[in-house]
Amino acid sequence: MFELGVVRRNITRADRTAADALAQYGSATVHEAMGRVGLMQPCMRPIQAGAQVSGTAVTVLLQPGDNWMLHVAAEQIREGDVVVAAVTSPCTDGYFGDLLATSFMARGARALVIDAGVRDVKALQQMGFAVWCRAISSKGTIKATLGSVNVPVVCAGMLVTPGDVIVADDDGVVVVPAAQAVATAEAAARREANEADKRARLAAGVLGLDMYKMREPLEKAGLRYID
Amino acid sequence: MFELGVVRRNITRADRTAADALAQYGSATVHEAMGRVGLMQPCMRPIQAGAQVSGTAVTVLLQPGDNWMLHVAAEQIREGDVVVAAVTSPCTDGYFGDLLATSFMARGARALVIDAGVRDVKALQQMGFAVWCRAISSKGTIKATLGSVNVPVVCAGMLVTPGDVIVADDDGVVVVPAAQAVATAEAAARREANEADKRARLAAGVLGLDMYKMREPLEKAGLRYID
Amino acid sequence: MFELGVVRRNITRADRTAADALAQYGSATVHEAMGRVGLMQPCMRPIQAGAQVSGTAVTVLLQPGDNWMLHVAAEQIREGDVVVAAVTSPCTDGYFGDLLATSFMARGARALVIDAGVRDVKALQQMGFAVWCRAISSKGTIKATLGSVNVPVVCAGMLVTPGDVIVADDDGVVVVPAAQAVATAEAAARREANEADKRARLAAGVLGLDMYKMREPLEKAGLRYID
Amino acid sequence: MFELGVVRRNITRADRTAADALAQYGSATVHEAMGRVGLMQPCMRPIQAGAQVSGTAVTVLLQPGDNWMLHVAAEQIREGDVVVAAVTSPCTDGYFGDLLATSFMARGARALVIDAGVRDVKALQQMGFAVWCRAISSKGTIKATLGSVNVPVVCAGMLVTPGDVIVADDDGVVVVPAAQAVATAEAAARREANEADKRARLAAGVLGLDMYKMREPLEKAGLRYID
Amino acid sequence: MFELGVVRRNITRADRTAADALAQYGSATVHEAMGRVGLMQPCMRPIQAGAQVSGTAVTVLLQPGDNWMLHVAAEQIREGDVVVAAVTSPCTDGYFGDLLATSFMARGARALVIDAGVRDVKALQQMGFAVWCRAISSKGTIKATLGSVNVPVVCAGMLVTPGDVIVADDDGVVVVPAAQAVATAEAAARREANEADKRARLAAGVLGLDMYKMREPLEKAGLRYID
Amino acid sequence: MFELGVVRRNITRADRTAADALAQYGSATVHEAMGRVGLMQPCMRPIQAGAQVSGTAVTVLLQPGDNWMLHVAAEQIREGDVVVAAVTSPCTDGYFGDLLATSFMARGARALVIDAGVRDVKALQQMGFAVWCRAISSKGTIKATLGSVNVPVVCAGMLVTPGDVIVADDDGVVVVPAAQAVATAEAAARREANEADKRARLAAGVLGLDMYKMREPLEKAGLRYID
Repeated sequence: MFELGVVRRNITRADRTAADALAQYGSATVHEAMGRVGLMQPCMRPIQAGAQVSGTAVTVLLQPGDNWMLHVAAEQIREGDVVVAAVTSPCTDGYFGDLLATSFMARGARALVIDAGVRDVKALQQMGFAVWCRAISSKGTIKATLGSVNVPVVCAGMLVTPGDVIVADDDGVVVVPAAQAVATAEAAARREANEADKRARLAAGVLGLDMYKMREPLEKAGLRYID
Repeated sequence: MFELGVVRRNITRADRTAADALAQYGSATVHEAMGRVGLMQPCMRPIQAGAQVSGTAVTVLLQPGDNWMLHVAAEQIREGDVVVAAVTSPCTDGYFGDLLATSFMARGARALVIDAGVRDVKALQQMGFAVWCRAISSKGTIKATLGSVNVPVVCAGMLVTPGDVIVADDDGVVVVPAAQAVATAEAAARREANEADKRARLAAGVLGLDMYKMREPLEKAGLRYID
Repeated sequence: MFELGVVRRNITRADRTAADALAQYGSATVHEAMGRVGLMQPCMRPIQAGAQVSGTAVTVLLQPGDNWMLHVAAEQIREGDVVVAAVTSPCTDGYFGDLLATSFMARGARALVIDAGVRDVKALQQMGFAVWCRAISSKGTIKATLGSVNVPVVCAGMLVTPGDVIVADDDGVVVVPAAQAVATAEAAARREANEADKRARLAAGVLGLDMYKMREPLEKAGLRYID
Repeated sequence: MFELGVVRRNITRADRTAADALAQYGSATVHEAMGRVGLMQPCMRPIQAGAQVSGTAVTVLLQPGDNWMLHVAAEQIREGDVVVAAVTSPCTDGYFGDLLATSFMARGARALVIDAGVRDVKALQQMGFAVWCRAISSKGTIKATLGSVNVPVVCAGMLVTPGDVIVADDDGVVVVPAAQAVATAEAAARREANEADKRARLAAGVLGLDMYKMREPLEKAGLRYID
Repeated sequence: MFELGVVRRNITRADRTAADALAQYGSATVHEAMGRVGLMQPCMRPIQAGAQVSGTAVTVLLQPGDNWMLHVAAEQIREGDVVVAAVTSPCTDGYFGDLLATSFMARGARALVIDAGVRDVKALQQMGFAVWCRAISSKGTIKATLGSVNVPVVCAGMLVTPGDVIVADDDGVVVVPAAQAVATAEAAARREANEADKRARLAAGVLGLDMYKMREPLEKAGLRYID
Repeated sequence: MFELGVVRRNITRADRTAADALAQYGSATVHEAMGRVGLMQPCMRPIQAGAQVSGTAVTVLLQPGDNWMLHVAAEQIREGDVVVAAVTSPCTDGYFGDLLATSFMARGARALVIDAGVRDVKALQQMGFAVWCRAISSKGTIKATLGSVNVPVVCAGMLVTPGDVIVADDDGVVVVPAAQAVATAEAAARREANEADKRARLAAGVLGLDMYKMREPLEKAGLRYID
């Protein structure tokens, strides 16, 4: 947020196995596994239904109406990365379309998460390039002012440091700091193992009130039943 | 809105036949049949395309970031109910996911209408549990503060009394007071019978101007045609 | 915007061949071909995925909560038109549904672009009538106050003069003044021809940095690479 | 919300002494005294700084862009009333200006709370007529469609029954059901008596951590201090 | 909206006497005098309370995050003008501050109306330079891309042609086409003359129901009084 | 953003002289002096006009509808601090009122910057405690869930590290990293020295076009003047 005109070439990406494994748990489970933190704001929506990805963050700081740094970022992408783009002020312009997506895919990117707009969404869906964004807009951008690549950025209310793991699905986008990736993958796995059994019992008609032993704390809190 | 810490067990549900029948007409026709009232605000959107349901309301009043009362509400659900949840202040957190949906379905609920966020939307779609909500968010909630179940609530700008009929589809959500359910179903049926003929004439090229005899009132209102 | 109670019967529609040809390029390419102008605000969203249309504008100026003039407009529609509707103050009511769509289709309209709400969206999708709008709402409207048909209107922030070409797709809606339709179609065709080659090179791994010769201007602007 | 075309002439107003007394406590204290319920949404803002009023509600249900029922409501106003107006769908038009305010003041109204727009705000401020609203807009309205007067309405997310007490100040607007007015006034008085002492201790440098005995529960919840 | 890179030097300003006279009536009366048209959206708010101005429009079309054309516009300002600025896509950056205001005042401008953000608002208030805007933001802008001066623009949803009259006050901003300025000033004067008498009668307790003879049409519309 | 349940007692505050000096320049100049970065989003508005403060950040991470950690933060405040509070999900509740303000003032705090709501705004204004916030709301909060104090937080889109300098005025809020405080104060001083001369020349009628030597680059960019 505070450094313009800089491209960091060497970043420390999170553990690859953990970064790849986190996709399967989805954003809700991962965010719970971290202690209910790390979510971007819910204004970030997928342009496609059903995509569920994780990867290591290459970050981009853009200027309003200017997508120059996305071209600079392409060169820094490695297989398994997710590009995360923020803008220095609120903007809904279409910073990204099918040409940049072609380039990003050729470089190995799995997705784009951008706190702004994108365009060519039909083509992007057909190409299978996943995008989470704040807006869809045909509005083109210029290439005039420097931002940065691979500096810490705030995207949709959440800090993203280059190399962090991004997990995104239909529910939203969560950021896992690189140092917590392995532990979070383990915690998410435990959490999910736990859920299958709960689901079966609830499906059989057991009430959460009983399964979670809520009746006593509810009574203690003063809940009154009236006929 | 004014009563916290209360669960009403016995509520008077609207006439079952009428409550079931209203789904087929959809929210627009039902709202017209009631005299153009009863709609929730258009910010309430379905998480799935094409679902069209009606049922009797079990209401829930939630606290911000706290979904405790949804678990309490599950026990009050009967076959054919639609759960309607409001929050005491604006909140987009994900109060509801696949585990609660499993429990609600097991209890016979047809849908959830919630003036807040939900998560696990892909799973919810696969399970076929219909949801109308204000937001989609992975953000988890706590279980710390009492709200109420089966008290009157305001959901997305509309009063819902327990037992009222809820009709929801791709166009939105409408509330039919229990006492008006039968009359509204009849009025909706009449309205729809009327529309097939109109549709055929319009498809044949007849103008609404002529079919609805609008030319005279338009002229009286001063409409001028210019070449 | 300034003339109420008027219907203009004879309008000069843009060149038909150009108006029809513009659809294939989509809103992003057309807006770029015009010099990056002409877009409506991104709040205008399609109710269906994948539709891509162009046509000549029949304009409508509506009053809040009143759809009378849409019926008046139907008579002015010719084959190949797109109806563009604005309201004199912000309103999300459902001005348009399946009956009006039936009439508009019978008259030859290709789509509706409305800076307000529509309803019966499932039926509209099934009929294949394309709509771009600001909201979806069951709320019905009245027929009490005059607006105008075929006067210049501002729709979602953009001026539309009757006869202009409207190009709409998943990315948004762009307005091409009638006098610029032919030149814009030519410019769009040139632009698109140009893109196939670029796409192939990017897919082969060529960087935009090199293809667009950006390295030198970036260095001149002061971009620093850090290891 | 469900009844159009009706004016109820005889309503049961809350206890006058309690209704008058509640103003002095302000919306925050009154809402706390009721158990933290009853607030309208924070989009309701005063057009003047510093006004703090309470009174008994005369309710109005309006149609979009139509202020006819405000004229009907004027006749139902008695000394000490606050007019509360809702619209059947979201609308920001200017339903109310200096002429209506002159009439309302002559009838004894203390304020207007309207979930829509007002105009002539400079004149309203000079006249000393207090208004809480969602928008300020010059947009005029028509007089064509019936709404209702003195039926229950939902205003900015909160149910208002005719005769309820409205308390409004710079912090927002709270609704006190008529039957709870006396008890709420007493609870508010106790609450406020309690605050003077707290304020003095905090001003003297005592920490809330100690005054409210929070250190132990915080420790129990797991709070860790790091140097 | 459609022409970039152009400065029109000679524009036809509205009749000076009418343009000056319109300020006294305010935006609500002027908009009514025009037949209830011409208003910008209510998101346009003054940065100062109580200012009430009118003047002839010098228009500016800006690019997102770029205020270059405001400097170009300064040269085109004449005594009695109001600068009206639009942006090619939604943007809240601070395009305008005390230095530009100093220059605009030196050139004779009476106000700025901008569909974007401004900064230095305390200084602007102290200088007495009136501004209506969509946002307040410290965010600075660049000078890199051409827009236009004195082309038709859409500002906050309303078309403004260079030379039109702008009337702005606490209630909002209205645009009067140059050709209608004289007639509008006359209509506004008549309207206002009419209001003093009405105000006196309403203040004396006469009801609008009687003064406007509404009882009969209300009864005809079906209004029912209930005791 | 990623650490809950932690209070850091020892933080490195920015240089005191620089932290104090930055207030005089205001948020716009400071943000420019940093290279046009560091601003919070423009939704952050002051509850009082004219306040202009700077100070060192004590940060707080809050849970939705829960202000417990503001009490914990009070103990960490030192003379010259500004408390900066973020919430883990969007929330407009009134987390802060006159009692907490009394305590914060007693501890030496200069202001509160909170990405949520506050209440008792009239009292806060009378006490002279400056607040920048996203909303004003009477809605009370609970004390049930841990957040953190003095961890890095994202407030209104900007990263704030404990000890950073906060500069806030009518134009908005800017964050200066502690390590850049001295250099930024110097750059801001140079920038301001520079402005007095410019202001005088503009007031004398010199055009920015000439003063900034813009005519040539504008011509090169293709600007055309038309009579």
